[in-house]
Amino acid sequence: MEPSKQRIVIIGGVAAGMKTACRLRRLDPTAHITVIDRTRNISYGACPLPYYIEGLFDDINEVRKTPTGVLRDETFFAKVKGFETLTRTEALEIKRTDKKVRLRNLDSGKEFELDYDKLVLATGNEPTIPPLPGMELSGVLPLKTMEQAQEIDRLAHRGKNAVIIGAGLIGLEVAEALTARGLNVTIIEMKDQVLATALDFSIAAMVHHELKRNKVNLRLNEPLVRIEGAEHVTQVVTSKGTYPADLVLIAIGVRPAVQLAKDAGLTLGETGAIAVNAYMQSSDPDIYAAGDCAECTDLLMKKKVYIPLGSTANKHGRVVANNIAGREEQFPGILGSLAVKVFNLNVARTGMSSRDAQLIGLKPESIVVSGPDFAHVYPGNNPIVIKLVVERSSRKVLGVQVAGPGVVDKRVDVIATAISLGATVDQIAQLDLCYAPPFSNAMDALHQTANAMRNKLDGLAESMSAVAVKKMMDNNEEFILLDVRSPAEQEKVRIKGATMMPLGALRQKLTELPVDALIVPFCKMSLRGYEAQLILQHAGFRNVRYMEGGVLGWPYELEK
Amino acid sequence: MEPSKQRIVIIGGVAAGMKTACRLRRLDPTAHITVIDRTRNISYGACPLPYYIEGLFDDINEVRKTPTGVLRDETFFAKVKGFETLTRTEALEIKRTDKKVRLRNLDSGKEFELDYDKLVLATGNEPTIPPLPGMELSGVLPLKTMEQAQEIDRLAHRGKNAVIIGAGLIGLEVAEALTARGLNVTIIEMKDQVLATALDFSIAAMVHHELKRNKVNLRLNEPLVRIEGAEHVTQVVTSKGTYPADLVLIAIGVRPAVQLAKDAGLTLGETGAIAVNAYMQSSDPDIYAAGDCAECTDLLMKKKVYIPLGSTANKHGRVVANNIAGREEQFPGILGSLAVKVFNLNVARTGMSSRDAQLIGLKPESIVVSGPDFAHVYPGNNPIVIKLVVERSSRKVLGVQVAGPGVVDKRVDVIATAISLGATVDQIAQLDLCYAPPFSNAMDALHQTANAMRNKLDGLAESMSAVAVKKMMDNNEEFILLDVRSPAEQEKVRIKGATMMPLGALRQKLTELPVDALIVPFCKMSLRGYEAQLILQHAGFRNVRYMEGGVLGWPYELEK
Repeated sequence: MEPSKQRIVIIGGVAAGMKTACRLRRLDPTAHITVIDRTRNISYGACPLPYYIEGLFDDINEVRKTPTGVLRDETFFAKVKGFETLTRTEALEIKRTDKKVRLRNLDSGKEFELDYDKLVLATGNEPTIPPLPGMELSGVLPLKTMEQAQEIDRLAHRGKNAVIIGAGLIGLEVAEALTARGLNVTIIEMKDQVLATALDFSIAAMVHHELKRNKVNLRLNEPLVRIEGAEHVTQVVTSKGTYPADLVLIAIGVRPAVQLAKDAGLTLGETGAIAVNAYMQSSDPDIYAAGDCAECTDLLMKKKVYIPLGSTANKHGRVVANNIAGREEQFPGILGSLAVKVFNLNVARTGMSSRDAQLIGLKPESIVVSGPDFAHVYPGNNPIVIKLVVERSSRKVLGVQVAGPGVVDKRVDVIATAISLGATVDQIAQLDLCYAPPFSNAMDALHQTANAMRNKLDGLAESMSAVAVKKMMDNNEEFILLDVRSPAEQEKVRIKGATMMPLGALRQKLTELPVDALIVPFCKMSLRGYEAQLILQHAGFRNVRYMEGGVLGWPYELEK
Repeated sequence: MEPSKQRIVIIGGVAAGMKTACRLRRLDPTAHITVIDRTRNISYGACPLPYYIEGLFDDINEVRKTPTGVLRDETFFAKVKGFETLTRTEALEIKRTDKKVRLRNLDSGKEFELDYDKLVLATGNEPTIPPLPGMELSGVLPLKTMEQAQEIDRLAHRGKNAVIIGAGLIGLEVAEALTARGLNVTIIEMKDQVLATALDFSIAAMVHHELKRNKVNLRLNEPLVRIEGAEHVTQVVTSKGTYPADLVLIAIGVRPAVQLAKDAGLTLGETGAIAVNAYMQSSDPDIYAAGDCAECTDLLMKKKVYIPLGSTANKHGRVVANNIAGREEQFPGILGSLAVKVFNLNVARTGMSSRDAQLIGLKPESIVVSGPDFAHVYPGNNPIVIKLVVERSSRKVLGVQVAGPGVVDKRVDVIATAISLGATVDQIAQLDLCYAPPFSNAMDALHQTANAMRNKLDGLAESMSAVAVKKMMDNNEEFILLDVRSPAEQEKVRIKGATMMPLGALRQKLTELPVDALIVPFCKMSLRGYEAQLILQHAGFRNVRYMEGGVLGWPYELEK
């Protein structure tokens, strides 16, 4: 291999920065690689921190260890990976003309400079702190660093009441963690649902129910006003109430850490993150940006988005290293795929929601289908609810959201793969997915969903969403909500106001129903509701639309 | 909807037949649909039968119930689905010229005929019984029907020793079931590995270990000679030994049930199953074939295959119904995707093995990578071993095999989707799969595998398989097998003959290694082995190849 002796300075020693450095060392044994980090806790995983708080592991350093248990500290990177890491070192200024970075050692206060041929900005994100009174109180903090996780752990030991500001990923994960620790947890969210940018209301509502089931006090549509206390926080005041608090987590979101880039005159994108081309180069071709400080392109919507995730940061790092080492590679973009566990509910999503699709001028069709995650005879199976979004004319899959106690990530990963490769819903229906009772059904829930969507696109099925049904109820509109489940199922749980008529009796009882009324049959999942629709239509009923997702997908209260 | 009044006769009332009938009724309310079945147990799932034997559910009728608990009997299909099923009725002859089927009621013995406009053959498969002495003894049987499952259950109550002939899917599943029931289980397999058509040796070897760990006596390379007993079986005689048996399961495979089709002069394919076109029509365009009696096309290899599975049967049924109802649809083909749970080991695969690829003239590259299925800090994570096969020149993904106690089906389904859509390994590496610690790692095991493959294709990594390393050992070839794991890991488990040199010390200890020898570094998974290779190469060692899959992927005995 030709020695390059390139001087590479990487600012930020977590996911993207360290991935860049490690990959680059593997590609180029002679490059002079230096990683700069303000802290000592380099190369840590932030995503597991809620699980540390929950007590699922005891040593906080686990988040800095390799899967085989080796601590990823300065010595590890020097001896095993073969490059230098300067910790407790702050980057003060990028001198682009001279290709130098001015740095300061935070312990000695000493300033010094490093020359670079290529500079990599992996400065990450910083939690957004709302400009409201009380943010300076002790016991009020975000969760980004290991130290903050340890502080929350200490506060949880002493405290009884926790308030979480913001129902995003971190807010939800910490709500579960602190509930498991025995605290009373309140979530304050200004929007009308959790995970507002990622989920549609009907799927988010499943999270709402799960939070309630686990005694989390979820306050939606409730903006934070201020946080109160003498030195330590005592209570949180919102537009609608006051909540006692020994601990307040600020989790309203993060923004890219771009001050250094901005000061250096690098272009910031429309999202506020550092603008990069497909090679992850900033507006200065000798300066790359990677990870949470860099902007991404949405693969489908072809627009710039800011969705910082460790998975993307690692991919960025590899692409940057490849390009610096002369192995040209583009980063194609992301789909906004994510997963989160909220108590016993698994939630995952990828691609566009219907709303996203409409916003960019597409004509989407969506459908909700419920079903077991694997064979109902095999122990441990659980329901999942799938919301699939497809473009009507091209029949291309645009996105999916899946939630339930069952396995959701598998279905989302299949759809993320399918979307990346331009699949239609017809292709999804024919995928040869692996089948055995402990893993799936002969027709997987995803096949069922694809076929239900095809029926809808082909005009064979007429359906409406649970949200639309609820709206008709709330408006006191005239229609018959027809519960075609078995009497045994109906006894357990019901949707208020529904007329009971088991599917097996429907063909015999047609005369009991008015021919011209809007009839909305439903079952536990979706299939019998669809069959009822067909039976009614074949018998001359003209206004029948089954309710998608059935009882499992009903995002509102049920009668018991 | 226009009334068609087509007369449709469907022979076979299990997966493909019933799916055809149900879908067709939904598409065409006026067609006259009759399903014929020899048995009374229509619409049962055969795949869950091993789990009935294991005792995971008590009522055998569960395999005939909908997920919501309704028995799928004649009444159900008549009242809910709206078509007639003639059970205990055998199809004797297809009179193609007259478009009639001659039938016999097995209870009354009465013969009668049905006219058809379209006939659907869904006659399924029949277990292969080897032409060897003793097959007629009581206690010797295959597992296909509910009655056979009940009989095996009864035999398991009384018996102590079970012998299973054949290490395919059913053989392995029943081995687990009977072991759980407390029987001593022996598997007799004439090939040198389990699941010989589906798995490469290195992945199959993981199943071998799992069987051993669970006290199953796995006899490979051992053809069956005869079964002995007076009236009831007492022992099984193979080429190498004699095994006591109170129960013998014949599970060497199945073949398509095609006698009726053959007698009617329909073309059989090269696999022995009924030849069909993409519309699932047999050589007589008014006769369709679906499910286990029909031949399939392998999507990738473009050749005819016979891989009967319930998942394929259901898809066939829908395609046949669509075509009969005038909604033209093709069945694209299959990838041979399958999954099986063997005790605590999950195994799944899709697409081609290296051998398959070579057989059709492709130049494949394969790689084995091991890793945890999700974040190592999150409880319940488990290792998986992934073997990925790619075509060298096009870099297109050809197949994957995954095994381990961790989640395997998700990775295989992603690859099945990717293969169906023509993805390259570079596209796999950039997939935006959903990430959170309870579900995956920031770089999923699949990303790691794709990147390792890219390194190999790009000449950045040189590696060899565990099988190749073992062969060198067995031939007493000169090479250094270099264990670069930590001393703590090395203490737990070792590969015999390996030289210990932890990765952290490698850069300092280079002088201890001979520059010209073949050096094969390895670790627990793969990454440190690869890094050791690079460190050695950069230091001037010219003959270094890391061993793929590490200790986790080592398919042979380990020292403890």
